Amino acid sequence: MTGAWTAMQRVFEERDRQDFDEVRIAGLAELAARVRELSELVVLTRADQSEVAVVAREVELLTRRLAEAGRGIPPGAQVGEGGIVRQLGSPVTGALNPLAPPIEISVSPDGTARSEFTLGVLYEGPPGFVHGGVSAMVLDHLSGVAASANGTPGMTAGLDLRYRRPTPLGVPLSAEAKAVRVEGRKTFVESRILGPDGRVTAEATAVFVMPTR
Amino acid sequence: MTGAWTAMQRVFEERDRQDFDEVRIAGLAELAARVRELSELVVLTRADQSEVAVVAREVELLTRRLAEAGRGIPPGAQVGEGGIVRQLGSPVTGALNPLAPPIEISVSPDGTARSEFTLGVLYEGPPGFVHGGVSAMVLDHLSGVAASANGTPGMTAGLDLRYRRPTPLGVPLSAEAKAVRVEGRKTFVESRILGPDGRVTAEATAVFVMPTR
Repeated sequence: MTGAWTAMQRVFEERDRQDFDEVRIAGLAELAARVRELSELVVLTRADQSEVAVVAREVELLTRRLAEAGRGIPPGAQVGEGGIVRQLGSPVTGALNPLAPPIEISVSPDGTARSEFTLGVLYEGPPGFVHGGVSAMVLDHLSGVAASANGTPGMTAGLDLRYRRPTPLGVPLSAEAKAVRVEGRKTFVESRILGPDGRVTAEATAVFVMPTR
Repeated sequence: MTGAWTAMQRVFEERDRQDFDEVRIAGLAELAARVRELSELVVLTRADQSEVAVVAREVELLTRRLAEAGRGIPPGAQVGEGGIVRQLGSPVTGALNPLAPPIEISVSPDGTARSEFTLGVLYEGPPGFVHGGVSAMVLDHLSGVAASANGTPGMTAGLDLRYRRPTPLGVPLSAEAKAVRVEGRKTFVESRILGPDGRVTAEATAVFVMPTR
């Protein structure tokens, strides 16, 4: 694990040297938001065959346009209040990643990481409900933020998920995570997702291990 | 859980009545593929501020075009060989979902569900490696297919993940899952992801519960 950690640190440093000022980040976040809307329409549109083909061709041209300016490396991270690292390209929280809902995470003084979010049709597993793997992704990420907020960041070593009831799509959900125990290099984090009625839909225990350097 | 299951069955039936013939599915899958390429460029492009703004505006117009034809409900599922249900809109396997890599899953005669896939920058967690939540999502989905292939489909009740080493981005990965035990309404499935060197990067034990009807 040590070699991997060193490699990651190197990548972090390289990315931090990139020129991503606030204006550029805002512009790309706007583009990512528009691509999210387009993505949802791909699944929902009733447009006919020929119209879909025309749009596909147009999307291809836009991609080429962005590619012509050159392909760089993914954006780095922003360090916000409380030392919380926010990866701009993250598939969970990344404002610049069209795949991310994206969820926003805040950390309270007692170290609890919280988020309120709604997941649309693109995150569907069983019809009308959130994919169990998406719930896992949210809890994994939130737990990582809680471990960092505890001053004991690390790599996920284990994630034990219990699904209590289906998590509904298209309605406000909330999630929270908090480090509950540290044993040597291991940090244990408890987390859960709550439905609009306040009942727990999924919960998890995560174990993070701080790498040796 | 029974009420949720009944609701899902109803949605399944409604979706199956939609007109998604093979030609329409192919056209939408093509569009989804183009949107995936565009999504990756959002994170990688070096285009300047004004170019990014123009592309964002163009994407908005394309979305409006698809929306003008009307918004339907998400596509249903295709039942393939071996009775494997493939949700066209799934965030993991859905050919029509721009968020999905998408991974293709095959089931061998002994009931092992397998997939070979590569995950790009949009699925990144630690720099250069796959997000732990994305690995969780793949294993959850693959395990569900293995439970179905075993003739004992159900809702995920638990997913216990162990991360052995970081899963690399941008290289061929493989994953497999197999039902190992059935106890009453519970089916236990073991799964794992392997890196290009054949070593296990993440593994999981999933428990699926067949709903009472």
